[in-house]
Amino acid sequence: FLLFVEFVTVSFLLGYLSSNTIVLFPQAEIDAAVQLLLKLKVDYKQMTGQDYKAGCPPSENLIVSNNGPAADDCDGEDLVDPWNVSASSTKGVDYDKLIVRFGSSKIDKELLERIEKVSGQRAHHFLRRGIFFSHRDMHQILDAYEKHKSFYLYTGRGPSSEAMHVGHLIPFIFTKWLQDVFDIPLVVQMTDDEKYLWKDLTLEECHRFTVENAKDIIACGFDVNKTFIFSDLDYMGASPQFYRNVVKVQKHVTFNQVKGIFGFTDSDCIGKISFPAIQAAPSFSSSFPQIFGGKKDVPCLIPCAIDQDPYFRMTRDVAPRIGLLKPALLHSTFFPALQGAQTKMSASDPNSSIFLTDTPKQIKNKINKHAFSGGKDTVEEHRKYGGNTEVDVSFLYLTFFLEDDEKLEKIKEDYTSGALLTGELKKILIETLQPMIAQHQERRKQVTDEMVQQFMTPRPLNYKF
Amino acid sequence: FLLFVEFVTVSFLLGYLSSNTIVLFPQAEIDAAVQLLLKLKVDYKQMTGQDYKAGCPPSENLIVSNNGPAADDCDGEDLVDPWNVSASSTKGVDYDKLIVRFGSSKIDKELLERIEKVSGQRAHHFLRRGIFFSHRDMHQILDAYEKHKSFYLYTGRGPSSEAMHVGHLIPFIFTKWLQDVFDIPLVVQMTDDEKYLWKDLTLEECHRFTVENAKDIIACGFDVNKTFIFSDLDYMGASPQFYRNVVKVQKHVTFNQVKGIFGFTDSDCIGKISFPAIQAAPSFSSSFPQIFGGKKDVPCLIPCAIDQDPYFRMTRDVAPRIGLLKPALLHSTFFPALQGAQTKMSASDPNSSIFLTDTPKQIKNKINKHAFSGGKDTVEEHRKYGGNTEVDVSFLYLTFFLEDDEKLEKIKEDYTSGALLTGELKKILIETLQPMIAQHQERRKQVTDEMVQQFMTPRPLNYKF
Repeated sequence: FLLFVEFVTVSFLLGYLSSNTIVLFPQAEIDAAVQLLLKLKVDYKQMTGQDYKAGCPPSENLIVSNNGPAADDCDGEDLVDPWNVSASSTKGVDYDKLIVRFGSSKIDKELLERIEKVSGQRAHHFLRRGIFFSHRDMHQILDAYEKHKSFYLYTGRGPSSEAMHVGHLIPFIFTKWLQDVFDIPLVVQMTDDEKYLWKDLTLEECHRFTVENAKDIIACGFDVNKTFIFSDLDYMGASPQFYRNVVKVQKHVTFNQVKGIFGFTDSDCIGKISFPAIQAAPSFSSSFPQIFGGKKDVPCLIPCAIDQDPYFRMTRDVAPRIGLLKPALLHSTFFPALQGAQTKMSASDPNSSIFLTDTPKQIKNKINKHAFSGGKDTVEEHRKYGGNTEVDVSFLYLTFFLEDDEKLEKIKEDYTSGALLTGELKKILIETLQPMIAQHQERRKQVTDEMVQQFMTPRPLNYKF
Repeated sequence: FLLFVEFVTVSFLLGYLSSNTIVLFPQAEIDAAVQLLLKLKVDYKQMTGQDYKAGCPPSENLIVSNNGPAADDCDGEDLVDPWNVSASSTKGVDYDKLIVRFGSSKIDKELLERIEKVSGQRAHHFLRRGIFFSHRDMHQILDAYEKHKSFYLYTGRGPSSEAMHVGHLIPFIFTKWLQDVFDIPLVVQMTDDEKYLWKDLTLEECHRFTVENAKDIIACGFDVNKTFIFSDLDYMGASPQFYRNVVKVQKHVTFNQVKGIFGFTDSDCIGKISFPAIQAAPSFSSSFPQIFGGKKDVPCLIPCAIDQDPYFRMTRDVAPRIGLLKPALLHSTFFPALQGAQTKMSASDPNSSIFLTDTPKQIKNKINKHAFSGGKDTVEEHRKYGGNTEVDVSFLYLTFFLEDDEKLEKIKEDYTSGALLTGELKKILIETLQPMIAQHQERRKQVTDEMVQQFMTPRPLNYKF
């Protein structure tokens, strides 16, 4: 009953309290309530695409939670939303299950081959290795592209601190590849307003993190003539068209819906509640008249980690109702923490990840000390039984950053057979990451404030629409 | 029980449904629930400033309703919120009660005299006659002004149609007087985004109504060098500082709060839920860096009808928590509909009001046909008993538009004694309004699109801060 009470609108509850007694309800009303509950159960199914599981609140049913407790108790399902990722198994999130639950599609062999055919390029190793594993409407993007209809890329970053880690690079490395291969415009949203709303930070701090993070993004090699990076705090106040699209989305999404999708509660601030519309709006080309000349129908492709999908499920639901195109998506798996694949890396725990500012020595120490090993306890056992690459974080990191397929396959064989020891595997990873991070730091040093300013100025890009 | 169920979060209710049975609650939990309810009752008092009345949902307790049914059944209290005004008596809303319930202060003789002393001008007849009847912190504004610290005026309009009626002019006539008397800047917010969110209108329509309504506002005689009129749809996309203040407010107001203040429900769109922050933001001088040179501490005075007070109660609650000044307010009564003082005029019912576009003939016909009379049924009875000026709409309109106090007093005496007949009273009103409206139409004709453009361009005004 207490649980019941907590989620009831305070004000109406009071209607039932008179001189400290609880009103009793006649049987007929209870029967009617049961009928209503049955109807709600059907609505639930419709809203979430899954059956309601009795005794298991909806966040555990994976729609989401709102920074609430993780849902490990409930049925062994993984929790995946924009603020929490927690897997029930040491192998990490079960991505095949996630595809079924989110209602997206697997990136299968056929799609891979089509991407290669249409682009005329070998698929990126993130695609070949299933790091980008799920999509929505990618075939439609390719259909249009084959008919010489262009599209644009939209990705983003929540600038919650100055420090980015290697996992944060994944969507940008992949987006850069897509931009090179298809030769199309890219918009990058820095959700500094979101970070202000969710974190104990000032607007000034969030905006500063935007600028600092933009430098790391630019260091990935984006072409200033093809790329627009924007701070929400700045661009909202610089583009009436962007705000118009935000308001359009806000008119067509109810609190009930964002509660269902994001797990917001009545105690959340109204900024959080309306924020999803701000992440939705860049999915529409009319939000960028300076780039698309006011065209409303340039298709959008969003490469992002799967935890961002709730925003775009909402966006895709709203789009046809406001006369705009649904964005297509490419979803990546999560980059594992050094401690293991059960959680996503966290920028707030320095030992959970390799930061883009780490020195070669820090990289070496972190990997040697903290990288979860799939090897055996003793050298003898390891030689005899071999290691487990499915849970070994060093090996997992190599699937992200070692581009050479043959070399990676050889490492897998040797580690599984026991020929390669954990220390040796870690050494390979260290020697892969050290130069990669050093080169990133070198490129980032070249990024001046003027360059950031250039990338962040609303302006036409080198494309005609 | 059914009512109960309707306001419960759908998802959590489902947790209590397993194989169609309702879980029964042990006595201890019911006791605990009663304790919780008692606490909620205290919170309610704290939130609303009034005792909870059992059996009377909070909208009826006057906080507000959200376009919901009016609350006439409940205790004979008036319903006053930004979307509904309904009085329980033919004399209209009981404004003295409203002051107590809203926690504002009466504009008393002392304040009137102080305004006259500080401004060096006779008080406007809206003040003398109690049309502006309530205030918040007006003494502080005058204290500062006496110390040569300037302030600024902020008022607004929701542009829901092209047609404005005479009642819509009240805040602008009064604001113009304040601007002339104190010689200070004025910002006028056109909430076209609000109208888009609340009404079945397109963004384009709402924006067009903004421009058309701005012409009527400009026709009131505002000085372009002292006045900035802005469309939310435009200014949000033109001022990063305005958006920053909106986000600040949005971070510090929860859904529970706007539910309590405005009566929003879970079925309302997220745009409505977050909108109050947009009406709050112009209360802070930092929203207009072009006018105040980035100064955060220029005090703001808001002349408005009392139904807008909920927005500014919220604003005043948030202001100190984001390091900004609370705005001061001057509240007006409602302009009565032709049919009587029980309701506010409605732009959607052409016979409920005199429109600014009405011809002399329309004005005459509307008043003769529709203006509610406080006279007696027959001439004989009227001569004998006299008329009632408290409910006579023609007389009420004259209190707004006939500036001559002596003339008005004479009319009151004659009508009350029966010397003046209803037809004669109506004739006086017709002859007051016809030239007034004709002059307004003449001035409005002079307002060009270029002038509107000028008023609506973000720019410095003729003041140094």
